[in-house]
Amino acid sequence: MVIYMIGLGLDDEKDISLKGLEAIKRCRHVYLEDYTSILNVPISGLEKLYGKKVIPLSREKIEVADTIFSHPNEDVALLVVGDVFSATTHVDLFLRAKEHNVRVQVIHNASIMTAIGETGLELYKFGKTTSMPYFEKSYMPQSPYDAVLENLMHGLHTLILLDIKRSENRFMSVNECLRQFTQIEDVRKKGIFSDRSLVVGCARLGSEHRIIKYGTVMQLMDSEFGEPLHCLIYPGKLHFMEEDMLKLWKV
Amino acid sequence: MVIYMIGLGLDDEKDISLKGLEAIKRCRHVYLEDYTSILNVPISGLEKLYGKKVIPLSREKIEVADTIFSHPNEDVALLVVGDVFSATTHVDLFLRAKEHNVRVQVIHNASIMTAIGETGLELYKFGKTTSMPYFEKSYMPQSPYDAVLENLMHGLHTLILLDIKRSENRFMSVNECLRQFTQIEDVRKKGIFSDRSLVVGCARLGSEHRIIKYGTVMQLMDSEFGEPLHCLIYPGKLHFMEEDMLKLWKV
Repeated sequence: MVIYMIGLGLDDEKDISLKGLEAIKRCRHVYLEDYTSILNVPISGLEKLYGKKVIPLSREKIEVADTIFSHPNEDVALLVVGDVFSATTHVDLFLRAKEHNVRVQVIHNASIMTAIGETGLELYKFGKTTSMPYFEKSYMPQSPYDAVLENLMHGLHTLILLDIKRSENRFMSVNECLRQFTQIEDVRKKGIFSDRSLVVGCARLGSEHRIIKYGTVMQLMDSEFGEPLHCLIYPGKLHFMEEDMLKLWKV
Repeated sequence: MVIYMIGLGLDDEKDISLKGLEAIKRCRHVYLEDYTSILNVPISGLEKLYGKKVIPLSREKIEVADTIFSHPNEDVALLVVGDVFSATTHVDLFLRAKEHNVRVQVIHNASIMTAIGETGLELYKFGKTTSMPYFEKSYMPQSPYDAVLENLMHGLHTLILLDIKRSENRFMSVNECLRQFTQIEDVRKKGIFSDRSLVVGCARLGSEHRIIKYGTVMQLMDSEFGEPLHCLIYPGKLHFMEEDMLKLWKV
């Protein structure tokens, strides 16, 4: 048994690599992890290209992993949107495979973490990544704000990934994220999310229909970004070429 | 005219996406940037798959960009090893295309910056990336050491990319990099590159023949990693699952 962990990239069925597609063709069972990210194509689009049934697995199913390990004599593919090791669940699965003495082959693909290079901001100069969860009455974590603050102190950019509630089909927008940041700003008052702070909002990076907008928090809060997935970037200290690039996206 | 900037991924000709390959087939001229990174396959391997001539461009040629813009009525592909915006040269080219009013389409692919997820270290917890140049008599920059130190202060991991001297066919090894770090350690004496400091050495990540080794600076300095490309990771504060993963690579 071999488990192929295969990245699907960011946009649609055609972002898979030739190597990834060949591996899928070899597999009897093809599973899809689609709760940490989504493609801009339904599962049927993948199935049509692969000529195989693709079975979506919930987070619980991947964590338990019984389904995946229930085919001792057959090769299995686990498809992951973006690159393979974007979520700890996948690391966990890799560990379980090692425990079961099952060979794992990883086939990498594009990730949002480097697709953001399209904004013109240097990938080298990104500090730690953070994510913004949907706030609830008693849950308003300030950790995304702290991450931006910490990176800024070193002149570094921050990528902020936005919450996904897959079961409810809810995907946080740049607008929602910025509103939540201003709520934290009201408490923390460091001035990093003032109306005039400059940020970069992105939608559908990696797709031909991607949008990148550069403007103040106030401007982007009212800006339309369209379909998911969105992400936000808080730029740090800018090199002149980075400035030139950001000008292209100015609202 | 459309310029397709296409990532090739990390290993061989089959890491290109279906979308990337389709774009190449549409292009009359196919150029390759291969001075910031290399694939584990010669250009002839790419040409065979594409059924097209592939012309390597030097850094200077891409910077001047005359060659690329010399086909006003034809589509051009610029192939980049890894993902597209790994180097400022590519951002510069994108800017020039905008100045020329030429449409650019970006097709992303796997990058070393997320392939390192295979070590088990969480991608979220990487701080700024640094690179280690070959030292020369009067050139021994301490910036890679500073980057590790700064990330460590926040518990973050550091990816250290290693120098490539394409024209001399020289690619820095993990061993060489560690020797240079210990030279800096002798001056700075913060103790982060002592003989017993634990680091992760990687070779050919993204390839089936990749090597990952976890051990002390002393151990990895004498460890064989084989063919390029190599990179080094200095781990920050470890989560228990990260520890479990690193144990797999212990020398």
